[in-house]
Amino acid sequence: MNTSVINLKEKSSKIKELHSYKIIVQMNDYYFKLIKVKREFIWHKHTDTDEVFIVVEGSLQVSLRDKILKLREGELVVVPKGVEHKTACSEECTVLLIEPAGTLNTGDAGGALTDTSLEWI
Amino acid sequence: MNTSVINLKEKSSKIKELHSYKIIVQMNDYYFKLIKVKREFIWHKHTDTDEVFIVVEGSLQVSLRDKILKLREGELVVVPKGVEHKTACSEECTVLLIEPAGTLNTGDAGGALTDTSLEWI
Repeated sequence: MNTSVINLKEKSSKIKELHSYKIIVQMNDYYFKLIKVKREFIWHKHTDTDEVFIVVEGSLQVSLRDKILKLREGELVVVPKGVEHKTACSEECTVLLIEPAGTLNTGDAGGALTDTSLEWI
Repeated sequence: MNTSVINLKEKSSKIKELHSYKIIVQMNDYYFKLIKVKREFIWHKHTDTDEVFIVVEGSLQVSLRDKILKLREGELVVVPKGVEHKTACSEECTVLLIEPAGTLNTGDAGGALTDTSLEWI
């Protein structure tokens, strides 16, 4: 079992590619995933789980159908299950996602941006 | 449903008392709890769940039976279920705990430090 101390920014510095989810730790059946982002994502929802976004570096916009949330470093939001959302990031940012293992990044929407290539770092 | 942006340090600044767990968000059946700490805790384990500690401010020591982990701001550790641990903090620090709702702070040890007075902030 891994009981190492994880430094979030240090882990982030090891990620060389954008838009590739990297698992950093597992808690029960949940993954903590780091991703470097610079793009506008697609509208989607997760019908069976909430999802947490924590900004580790930079800024992230999370659009819901009725409002736009702007998150900076050290800020988080819970997107409740069933709630449509779309992330966007004009400058590169690093986000920590917390959600059950098996959760697809594109949720119910599917499509070309679906990423099933989870790797640990 | 709460879809507000939560700033961890801002939430921390609202906590005026030490050693009182404050729920900041819920993700499925998990609570994210902030606590300000300045004490040595007791040895205990959680027999049915992993537990995540993320340091928001200051430094936290997490002792396991075979090693001592030192966490600074922006660092995290997963204490696996069944693994005995003891936290300690000589200077005030703020820690974000992630664990299932209903998880007792003293785990299997119980005793006077058991805190059942969970409040939201």
